[in-house]
Amino acid sequence: MKFTGTKENLKKALLLASRAIGSNTTLPVLNNLLLQTEKGQLKISSTNLELAIKTWIGGQIDEQGEITIPAKTITEHITNITDEKITLQTQKNNLVIDSKNTHSIVKGLPAEEFPLIPDIKEGIEVSIEGKTLAEGLSQVSFASAFSETQPELSGVLFNLEGRVLKIAATDRYRLAEKTLQTKDGGGEKKVIVPNRVVTELARIMGDIKKDVKIILSENQVLFKTDDVEIISRLIEGKYPDYQEIVPKDFSTQIKIKTSELTSAFKLSGIFAQENNNVEVEVDTKKTALILNSTSQRAGSNTTEVSGEIMGGNNKIVFNYRYVLDCLNHTNGKKIILKLIDPSSPAMITVEGDDNYFYLVMPIKV
Amino acid sequence: MKFTGTKENLKKALLLASRAIGSNTTLPVLNNLLLQTEKGQLKISSTNLELAIKTWIGGQIDEQGEITIPAKTITEHITNITDEKITLQTQKNNLVIDSKNTHSIVKGLPAEEFPLIPDIKEGIEVSIEGKTLAEGLSQVSFASAFSETQPELSGVLFNLEGRVLKIAATDRYRLAEKTLQTKDGGGEKKVIVPNRVVTELARIMGDIKKDVKIILSENQVLFKTDDVEIISRLIEGKYPDYQEIVPKDFSTQIKIKTSELTSAFKLSGIFAQENNNVEVEVDTKKTALILNSTSQRAGSNTTEVSGEIMGGNNKIVFNYRYVLDCLNHTNGKKIILKLIDPSSPAMITVEGDDNYFYLVMPIKV
Repeated sequence: MKFTGTKENLKKALLLASRAIGSNTTLPVLNNLLLQTEKGQLKISSTNLELAIKTWIGGQIDEQGEITIPAKTITEHITNITDEKITLQTQKNNLVIDSKNTHSIVKGLPAEEFPLIPDIKEGIEVSIEGKTLAEGLSQVSFASAFSETQPELSGVLFNLEGRVLKIAATDRYRLAEKTLQTKDGGGEKKVIVPNRVVTELARIMGDIKKDVKIILSENQVLFKTDDVEIISRLIEGKYPDYQEIVPKDFSTQIKIKTSELTSAFKLSGIFAQENNNVEVEVDTKKTALILNSTSQRAGSNTTEVSGEIMGGNNKIVFNYRYVLDCLNHTNGKKIILKLIDPSSPAMITVEGDDNYFYLVMPIKV
Repeated sequence: MKFTGTKENLKKALLLASRAIGSNTTLPVLNNLLLQTEKGQLKISSTNLELAIKTWIGGQIDEQGEITIPAKTITEHITNITDEKITLQTQKNNLVIDSKNTHSIVKGLPAEEFPLIPDIKEGIEVSIEGKTLAEGLSQVSFASAFSETQPELSGVLFNLEGRVLKIAATDRYRLAEKTLQTKDGGGEKKVIVPNRVVTELARIMGDIKKDVKIILSENQVLFKTDDVEIISRLIEGKYPDYQEIVPKDFSTQIKIKTSELTSAFKLSGIFAQENNNVEVEVDTKKTALILNSTSQRAGSNTTEVSGEIMGGNNKIVFNYRYVLDCLNHTNGKKIILKLIDPSSPAMITVEGDDNYFYLVMPIKV
């Protein structure tokens, strides 16, 4: 293999592919990136056996070939080159890296040792803008759980109904759901994507303003743009039928500035260190939400946040961290807190976003 | 005690005083800040028994008094208040914090439990601009060692000779020295300030454009501005007489762009993971510095950096991390590397700064 390309392209592709690299001691080749010439481009692949990333960059190919190289070594190396043009050439199991001012021989492993990354040929296809998908994913994925007994909760549900894609996550104490409109294609399919993959996916897709094609197959899902493919295994199991527990009617609603409510919950949380409980009271007389917390150790706090109220007085106790999780993952300037009574789930929605809701269970005291 | 002040002033003072707070489990009161009214101001003090910080802020005092309050609780609390005006009032061993939208009772400890922070009344006095002192300290302090057998190396030497203050640090493998001109006062005094204190001092002083008064006494040193006092204990012991080993004459000098040399050492370091050794060669024919490194595991690298050479060819082996430490702590655009031979210490100076040098021992191979 002999490939010549720019530092910037190589660096970008290497950093991207490195996102699937953990630190694997049982199978050292998983710490490596697979470099291959393919159709006039350099293809860089990585996998941790759950998530696989493939990316392609253009350049000049003088010799076909392939090799695997430690991801950390080559990425740090290319990052610290100050020259613009870089040549990569295999020499048996080594990769020779040359640029104007630097010459290196990097030890690799044969490409044959690299695990096979499956190609997804068939499945239900839809398209969606990369940035829109990324924002939706980051609005829900934090609500998933790392559960060994209920592995399906360790993932994000992708529920495609025609051209509507609902993504959702829950740990049974709170639930987040976002509804996305897809562009082309469509069909009926429910899959569960591991949360670790979703986190990387949101990071990678956040920079992509073009459309991403999603192909849902039986055991895997593929996210595909012009020059990147992300393949994930799916979590087996049946996702909880959460639609039944989503309340439709509320007795009290209060609209509040997100930044003010965030500060109030952070402040209140200081005095809720033992059990995370913050009592929340809608006071129609004060036209405010009143937060109360008490700690044996630290002391006690009462904080008021003014808001626009619809309905009557109401009261509920939350784990304040669950509320902050939601507030920290929205860009909306105002949120609406919707309450039924102290023992029913409460809902948070974002002003101007009809496609998102967050449910949080009350703490019964 | 009853004090009313602005959020911004309180926040700034609390964050500053919190710099002396560690997490002390044997003496819980050390996790607290001491709040006292003093001469129409609120005084906030902290200590970890090595370093003490006192700071004063203005406001309205309606009642004299004092209390100690957990640093973390009150700092997080004040940071998350969105109101501008805050009132602090003692109620037995509690502090009541009030602002427009929030009311808290924070549990404290009596002021009597707080350790006495000694006042320094007498000593040799000099003045120096805060920012200049901070920059000098950060240029040398990284070269100190955390040594239990040689505690004097765990500190930074302050060597006052008349109106010239030399600050220096060494771990016996490298040495950094900065010469500062003081403004008022002067005298003869050598003290060793713990490196942990110097690190905090550099952070705090970095924002101070006014002069800082330094008072050197027998067992302590005081750094004093209008509204902040930092008191540190001194390390006992005799600082090594390093002046003798500082070479005056060099056979080769090469002037190089700092950013290019930094990239080159980072790149070379990737292939020096086993022993940190990078061979450095001044090549008059190529008018360049050539870096060579080899790793059993990773491979090998050769990198060239062009420079302006005075003198002949030369060669030396460095621990590349020691060189990077120096390069990472200079703002100078170009540095000058000065060599004698492969077994003598090398020197790095910064173009345009005659008051700084860094010595690094060669690795004998």
